[in-house]
Amino acid sequence: MATSPRTRLDPEARRAQLVGLGLQMLATLPLDRVAVDDIAAEAGISRGLLFHYFPTKRDFHVAVARAAAREMLARTETDPALDGVAQLRAGVAAFVDHVAANRDAYVAFIRGSAGGDPELLAVYEETRAAFSQRVLAGLGAADDPPPRLRAAVRGWVAFTEELTVDWLGRGDLDRDELIDLIDDALVALVAAATGDPGAHGLRQ
Amino acid sequence: MATSPRTRLDPEARRAQLVGLGLQMLATLPLDRVAVDDIAAEAGISRGLLFHYFPTKRDFHVAVARAAAREMLARTETDPALDGVAQLRAGVAAFVDHVAANRDAYVAFIRGSAGGDPELLAVYEETRAAFSQRVLAGLGAADDPPPRLRAAVRGWVAFTEELTVDWLGRGDLDRDELIDLIDDALVALVAAATGDPGAHGLRQ
Repeated sequence: MATSPRTRLDPEARRAQLVGLGLQMLATLPLDRVAVDDIAAEAGISRGLLFHYFPTKRDFHVAVARAAAREMLARTETDPALDGVAQLRAGVAAFVDHVAANRDAYVAFIRGSAGGDPELLAVYEETRAAFSQRVLAGLGAADDPPPRLRAAVRGWVAFTEELTVDWLGRGDLDRDELIDLIDDALVALVAAATGDPGAHGLRQ
Repeated sequence: MATSPRTRLDPEARRAQLVGLGLQMLATLPLDRVAVDDIAAEAGISRGLLFHYFPTKRDFHVAVARAAAREMLARTETDPALDGVAQLRAGVAAFVDHVAANRDAYVAFIRGSAGGDPELLAVYEETRAAFSQRVLAGLGAADDPPPRLRAAVRGWVAFTEELTVDWLGRGDLDRDELIDLIDDALVALVAAATGDPGAHGLRQ
């Protein structure tokens, strides 16, 4: 190893530090441009020591993607004491603001910087599934949802991602108009999927 | 060059042949796994000659992606003599069937095998924009659509891609149920975006 660590950290703390630095970089860079050399330099450790914790650059990127997904899910968690519409609105607003604050990383994520990597694709798939599941739970349909409803909610997650990324590049709607449209879309899609305009207490 | 061409073709015809072979391979392989060596062998030309037409593997992949996008748009073209609902249904059915027939390539496309490549991302972006524009034209709103309607249609294209790829991996809806749901979703989203349930002649 070329240099010794500036600070001695136990393995768990070191891994967490490195992933945390990756997350910080991800705010302004797409994942595939987060360089392990920069991370090692920032942490004051050698490239060799970084590779001790993450055997390949890809392992590191997968760990950062998992952490980003966990952070996204945590940031968009809503107060279960709110009613359905208020929870939906709060969750969508948190999503839009989080994506806006982490623009490059999320545009790259949503626009596909996974490059066909199965582990990264799995992280993205799990994140979308977790969002869908959360929405279904908010609709009181977490267990065994009807296939049309499950599919419509799943599609709405993609709709939301697409609109948010598209909006970042345009701005022909303001933030609140974007959030209104995404909320209205879920209400409309749930009604269309279930055939019941008042289904699941979403009608305002 | 190691071998001479089995058949002499003029440059345009040779390029078209190579891209056509790439398209055939794309039916069963994601783009990033379409190997130029296999294409050259199939065409009976040397790797060197292929690189004469496409200086890099990436140039070849971009050309194949463009051809795949054009093919997708051509296959999903609908008869303008049909009314709005019938055109929508025909276009969605053609999209679902085309994706099902080219499963691996489109799953990889939609799930992001662009790997952050700007030219490939541009092809995908142009394809989504062309789909959106076609739907807006079908709604009589091709020119200067209201921002909410434009965004909702754009999001519906992503919704449709997501549902189709998700459906390929599940099959909890049959083909016609999937198409119904996608059609119903557009009607619902247009109504939600415009505030008019009968807007644009889509109400059945």
